[in-house]
Amino acid sequence: MDTIAAISTPMGEGAIAIVRLSGPEAIQIADKIYKGPKGKTLSSVESHTIHYGHIVDRPSDRVVEEVMVSVLKAPRTFTREDVIEINCHGGIVTVNQVLQLALREGARLAEPGEFTKRAFLNGRIDLSQAEAVMDLIRAKTDRAMNVAMNQMEGRLSALVRRLRSEILETLAHVEVNIDYPEYDDVEEMTHQILVEKATAVKKEIETLLRTSEQGKILREGLSTVIIGRPNVGKSSLLNSLVHEAKAIVTDIPGTTRDVIEEYVNVRGVPLRLVDTAGIRETEDIVERIGVERSRQVLKEADLILLVLNYSEELSEEDVKLFEAVEGMDVIVILNKTDLEPKIDTERVRELANGRPVVTTSLLKEEGINDLEEAIQSLFYTGAIESGDLTYVSNTRHITILQQAKRAIEDALSGIEQDVPIDMVQIDLTRCWELLGEIIGDSVHESLIDQLFSQFCLGK
Amino acid sequence: MDTIAAISTPMGEGAIAIVRLSGPEAIQIADKIYKGPKGKTLSSVESHTIHYGHIVDRPSDRVVEEVMVSVLKAPRTFTREDVIEINCHGGIVTVNQVLQLALREGARLAEPGEFTKRAFLNGRIDLSQAEAVMDLIRAKTDRAMNVAMNQMEGRLSALVRRLRSEILETLAHVEVNIDYPEYDDVEEMTHQILVEKATAVKKEIETLLRTSEQGKILREGLSTVIIGRPNVGKSSLLNSLVHEAKAIVTDIPGTTRDVIEEYVNVRGVPLRLVDTAGIRETEDIVERIGVERSRQVLKEADLILLVLNYSEELSEEDVKLFEAVEGMDVIVILNKTDLEPKIDTERVRELANGRPVVTTSLLKEEGINDLEEAIQSLFYTGAIESGDLTYVSNTRHITILQQAKRAIEDALSGIEQDVPIDMVQIDLTRCWELLGEIIGDSVHESLIDQLFSQFCLGK
Repeated sequence: MDTIAAISTPMGEGAIAIVRLSGPEAIQIADKIYKGPKGKTLSSVESHTIHYGHIVDRPSDRVVEEVMVSVLKAPRTFTREDVIEINCHGGIVTVNQVLQLALREGARLAEPGEFTKRAFLNGRIDLSQAEAVMDLIRAKTDRAMNVAMNQMEGRLSALVRRLRSEILETLAHVEVNIDYPEYDDVEEMTHQILVEKATAVKKEIETLLRTSEQGKILREGLSTVIIGRPNVGKSSLLNSLVHEAKAIVTDIPGTTRDVIEEYVNVRGVPLRLVDTAGIRETEDIVERIGVERSRQVLKEADLILLVLNYSEELSEEDVKLFEAVEGMDVIVILNKTDLEPKIDTERVRELANGRPVVTTSLLKEEGINDLEEAIQSLFYTGAIESGDLTYVSNTRHITILQQAKRAIEDALSGIEQDVPIDMVQIDLTRCWELLGEIIGDSVHESLIDQLFSQFCLGK
Repeated sequence: MDTIAAISTPMGEGAIAIVRLSGPEAIQIADKIYKGPKGKTLSSVESHTIHYGHIVDRPSDRVVEEVMVSVLKAPRTFTREDVIEINCHGGIVTVNQVLQLALREGARLAEPGEFTKRAFLNGRIDLSQAEAVMDLIRAKTDRAMNVAMNQMEGRLSALVRRLRSEILETLAHVEVNIDYPEYDDVEEMTHQILVEKATAVKKEIETLLRTSEQGKILREGLSTVIIGRPNVGKSSLLNSLVHEAKAIVTDIPGTTRDVIEEYVNVRGVPLRLVDTAGIRETEDIVERIGVERSRQVLKEADLILLVLNYSEELSEEDVKLFEAVEGMDVIVILNKTDLEPKIDTERVRELANGRPVVTTSLLKEEGINDLEEAIQSLFYTGAIESGDLTYVSNTRHITILQQAKRAIEDALSGIEQDVPIDMVQIDLTRCWELLGEIIGDSVHESLIDQLFSQFCLGK
């Protein structure tokens, strides 16, 4: 392993910027660019200590930055290697210069996610924990954060490991029985144990998969589209969701809207507002409804907010909108209750066909609570609301769990159909291997490279 | 002083985010939300050490983050108070939760610049050094960074302090002479010393002011406007400047263009491209040249890049552009040398009236070096290029130095005109006080508040 370096704080003007180094040469490289008080060197200090000094461009000794350097020696570090963190004043130019000096002295620019990858390769965390690190960073709501945190702390890993060891025990048990076929009831006993164990594992996988729909929403947000004729209040609804609903980052001044503008947090449900720029800029989404692209956007949405004008009669266009969202998760919003009611609410309920209908006056800020409740109850059933569940939220994990479920089902139907026991063993082994992929026990190097390349730089 | 807290890294997804606390309760507050291995508390550890642990939401002990906490005890800290830095995985939601917990346990959200303000109020740095901290963060080029770094390291402060002590000595000397008027040649001697000393101080202030024009450009960038008729190549020029010239942040992947898009670094000269969005979007800047706003933009520009089409005859509009930029710093660019030459270059040189004329083919990427050289030589005269000068770059400092220069000039002309010596003393004292304002020895609290409010949050 060589020594890697990267800027580990987000780019931009800030109070603190950090250049991080990790690897066998981290401390020596840092010493080449560090000038401490009274000739202090970083190689001579204790681990887990912090040192004031300057980063200098040698041999001219031009001062580049005033810094605090953290020295963290292996193995009690994030990567289990020697780690140096150079804490700079947060400018873009200075932090770049510090990084450049570290690179000049022998460090290599880290690839995205390479620090976390080393933590994984050096056995500090498993693959699902590494993936959770990135989920934690990208979390849009408190709930999503909790799911990621639990996963990072190894709850999913522990569950997967337990399932794997149960499968392994079962396999061992079967193996023993196959090796000693002289006993009488071996075959029957083997079948019985197999059915019991495989059914138990299958049930646990199914429970995990049941959490995955919500886990995925928590992790990725609920892709939401607002549709409706011109002037029914689509923009008002958007603004109301952004401003009224507890926006992701609200109470900290200096937080820019940019970071979060597509996400709003409605009672813990992260809505990812799709194509909202279009809604802001143009009112002709109805005209474009026939266009393929619009249909595509609708098709990919998890939630449709269909806005109607309470003070106008239902138009043919409105009915067409209902047709366009046939079979989708829709909340119908009758807006402008502050005006004279003209819409046929019975007919609307009929068209809604059991899906929730909410009345609002976005102008008077009325009915927004009802809307939020409708969104919440559509995506949190009571059962899953209760906190302490281990969620599966990652598409990769979900896909693997589905395959693992099929493998265990194959095993079970094999037993039922009295196929030779070694065929059943193959299915069980496959399930065991698949589960191993979640925690990274049996994955291909190229997959690992690909996973970590999605990380942000410096992580 | 109470205990303040803020997020000290830029907002955004990154590998590391830091919540910083400073004040007498910093360590106790951190202990209320920190859970260390084996029950370790932060109050029990040595200063300048780093500790692994979790941030938990008590009493439920819900884990919010996995962190490394730096404990820095007064007085060897940035603020000279106890400082805690909580190093989190870089998510927006998690770092906000950590901050919220710190606030719940008794910290107050820091105002922008409040950490640096405390460093100033507690005497760790003077005002000009504090201002340099922000300049360092905002520096757009290496040169600007060096200017800020020198100022932060106290070079300007040292110079100002020396000037002040010289004035003070002179005042003391004069005082002694006034007190003992019984000696013969006292008056003559006093005058002679005064003239000598005041002239020396004046010269040093003038030298500082001579650096200020370039210092200000280095700090704030050179406001640059590109003008020209449609299709002469304004957009190509813009792109060429952004891409060809050494952009502020180039060699680090993951650096977004956003951060820097208005600044380009041409051989150390930071150009702030004004209204370039307009140039991108519309080609009718020539039509609007008569409009007041356009004239205003031109008037406020430090540099005009006037682009002409080498392959067309000079039009009446071109001539009007020359009239509009009368008396300004202009570089004339004859673009499209790849085509048949048709422009009357003699006439262009006449209109340019001694100002540089450069020929380019932006299409073929020719002549860009000449343009860069023209920009460079327009703003760096050889004298000031030579590295080790103390630059004044801050408008506040420049204004004060100009006033101080006037005060010392008043003193000098007073001596010449034989005004009573105590009147001269008043002018000298005023100069001494003004210089004190640069380093913050004699400034009003409201000015201090206003200065630090321009800082970024968490600094």
